[in-house]
Amino acid sequence: MELGISPWPSSLCSSVLDKLKASARKVRKIGEDDPRRIAHSFKVGLALTAVSFFYYATPLYDGFGVSAIWAVMTVVVVMEYTVGATLSKGLNRAVATLIAGVLGVGAHEVAARSGERGEPIVLGLFVFVLGAASTFSRFVPAIKARYDYGVTIFILTFSLVAVSSFRVEELLQLAHQRLSTVAIGVAICLATSFFVFPVWAGEELHKLVASNLEKLASFLEGLEAECFGEKARQQNMEGKPFLQVHKSVLNSKASEDSLLNFAKWEPRHGRFGCHHPWKQYQKLGALNRHCASSMESLVSFITTFREPMSKNTDPDIAEKIRTSCVEMSSGSAKALRELSTAIRAMTVPHSANGHVAASLAASADLRRALSGGVALSEVTDIAAISFLLAEIVGRTEEIAGSVEELARLAMFKPVEPDCGSAVKPVADDEETTTRVAITIDR
Amino acid sequence: MELGISPWPSSLCSSVLDKLKASARKVRKIGEDDPRRIAHSFKVGLALTAVSFFYYATPLYDGFGVSAIWAVMTVVVVMEYTVGATLSKGLNRAVATLIAGVLGVGAHEVAARSGERGEPIVLGLFVFVLGAASTFSRFVPAIKARYDYGVTIFILTFSLVAVSSFRVEELLQLAHQRLSTVAIGVAICLATSFFVFPVWAGEELHKLVASNLEKLASFLEGLEAECFGEKARQQNMEGKPFLQVHKSVLNSKASEDSLLNFAKWEPRHGRFGCHHPWKQYQKLGALNRHCASSMESLVSFITTFREPMSKNTDPDIAEKIRTSCVEMSSGSAKALRELSTAIRAMTVPHSANGHVAASLAASADLRRALSGGVALSEVTDIAAISFLLAEIVGRTEEIAGSVEELARLAMFKPVEPDCGSAVKPVADDEETTTRVAITIDR
Repeated sequence: MELGISPWPSSLCSSVLDKLKASARKVRKIGEDDPRRIAHSFKVGLALTAVSFFYYATPLYDGFGVSAIWAVMTVVVVMEYTVGATLSKGLNRAVATLIAGVLGVGAHEVAARSGERGEPIVLGLFVFVLGAASTFSRFVPAIKARYDYGVTIFILTFSLVAVSSFRVEELLQLAHQRLSTVAIGVAICLATSFFVFPVWAGEELHKLVASNLEKLASFLEGLEAECFGEKARQQNMEGKPFLQVHKSVLNSKASEDSLLNFAKWEPRHGRFGCHHPWKQYQKLGALNRHCASSMESLVSFITTFREPMSKNTDPDIAEKIRTSCVEMSSGSAKALRELSTAIRAMTVPHSANGHVAASLAASADLRRALSGGVALSEVTDIAAISFLLAEIVGRTEEIAGSVEELARLAMFKPVEPDCGSAVKPVADDEETTTRVAITIDR
Repeated sequence: MELGISPWPSSLCSSVLDKLKASARKVRKIGEDDPRRIAHSFKVGLALTAVSFFYYATPLYDGFGVSAIWAVMTVVVVMEYTVGATLSKGLNRAVATLIAGVLGVGAHEVAARSGERGEPIVLGLFVFVLGAASTFSRFVPAIKARYDYGVTIFILTFSLVAVSSFRVEELLQLAHQRLSTVAIGVAICLATSFFVFPVWAGEELHKLVASNLEKLASFLEGLEAECFGEKARQQNMEGKPFLQVHKSVLNSKASEDSLLNFAKWEPRHGRFGCHHPWKQYQKLGALNRHCASSMESLVSFITTFREPMSKNTDPDIAEKIRTSCVEMSSGSAKALRELSTAIRAMTVPHSANGHVAASLAASADLRRALSGGVALSEVTDIAAISFLLAEIVGRTEEIAGSVEELARLAMFKPVEPDCGSAVKPVADDEETTTRVAITIDR
């Protein structure tokens, strides 16, 4: 069949090619988004090859027999993306194997006294009772969170040792070999994890929380520019990108919880000491989500009511509302951005409180202005929007308090307010505060 | 040492006893909260014992050799709480073992041609490349969601077969034995999961979504009684239990996603057909969370401003606002409760739309009333609360639409409006609608 005569096969071919190209682009993007993923894949390959060569090397093989295959298995299941996750899985596996091995040998000793007919029954009973009890323990939240994998390996090893004991003559040697090979596998994983481009769960958590603060700040900056700015066009808000930016913060609970869980296993690394207050990140994360949830309410308001300002609004009132909203959103945005920068640099935030105070003052000021005999009909929707914005300002205050506590607990370094990049926000801040003070004086 | 002479050991003893008792109570509560957890633990014990006896039975053992231990291992790692999860893990494990076994034998054939010195190098290269590529594929979201376990088992089996091929003479027999024993383990798990007190992920998802709707309804009922009711005391809202009831809805995304993922693997069961629209539950769940997030905003308003009604409010206006808020919250609560009942019974909801319409009418009505020249100073906070409540009414409307779509897609049964328990809400509904109609006419 020639090309050109029947267009069907060539178009089919090109559509398949297009799909393949699209998939390749997607896969490439995953690697480009975070090149450490590629590094991790190489690390797993490296650890696997290392453990295989351990198996190929004859003198070692003679020592461990076929059990050496357990080392390969350990590498496949223990090797995880972050150091904390690898440590958690490795220690769970090693300790659970040890305990289950000892108990398994004990169970064999007991069962061996029941005669040839009784032995499988006693062993079966042991396996049933310990299997059921361990499975039930996995429903206990505290065990589920930290030792779930260990419990699985405990059931596995106990069943293996207990069941094998019926057939294998030299049980102690089997238990010893399994333990040694698991230890070798864990050691190879830990070495690769620690020394080849390590990814620390604690550092990831630290960065995630800081980047979530930045997202909240971006939302408020977008809000200021698109809704209250001088050039704001009030129509068709629905497609604006800033309305989406806080959404990923709302869904970050699962990642934060798992990173926190792994961070606790990690030793001192980089700028993070042994007693770094990881728990505080969880509290801060909850406040971030609370703030994002208030933003969600604001978004549904903005997208539902397209004309925030009624046409018969007094121009003075309209201007007053607009400037107050600008002050609230820009003050909170600056505060959040400074808090994020402070977390990244691990320094004490020094101007965030000033920005928060300016937003709070603008919020109280607007409240007072609106209470002064303005007819509700003039301002219904914008009033609701400014109330919601005031709520976000309140959340920002809580976040600032939580970051301060983190800075205190983790002993962040203080920074001289007059040095380097810190100059600009302070200047902004003073200007805002002054302006607000004047407004209040009126 | 006698008791009574030195109080120290006895008090130590009793404090340890108290702690043990407290732990025992906790563990007991976990079982009482959901007795199916106990059933699941027994099922795992049962499956493990069944597979051990398979090992003890001599004729079978002679057929499979030491490989029979793989069956024990498969049971430990594949047996999960729901049928869908067990099916997903079992099929992943069986298929991945098959593919990796075939590729492993192929890799051995290629490596065997490289001579005794070249063989381990070629095998090591294969293990490195396939291990790294498979690990990278786990970062692709679509693979991560459904085939993560399969990819792990693929790397594991391929490494085992490839590495063993250097030592084990009869490789084909080893691959065949591993595949057969894994299949036996999976079969035992599936049989236990399907036939002994099965827990279906799909049914769990169905119930979770219905119970989340009930929680949202309880929040609104509490709000009505505590904030707008005749006997409402407006002080000290912070400790009220209804302010917490929507919180678990906010955090239900992870469970819903994982149940959905497992539900897709399940065959027809009970009232759920093969093509049950599981995806629709995800959409409905997102709307529920959106509604709960609006409730969260309302809660922070209620707990911050303790006197929703300013003292200088016109009594007529105050009464108007109160009754409108009662109508909005009670109408939405009734609608949500009816939607939940309809999902549980798998019947078409027939009066929910009426309740939603009543709430929407009350909301529009209040808006109109407040626009009519009321001074903002009189109603600032209550106006904000009623706006937020109006937003919740809007969310309820979306939820009702989504449940209707679910009823259509899943072919829920229609119910005659005049039979049984359905009478009461309809009567309520008509009353509300009439009242609203009169109000609008004014």
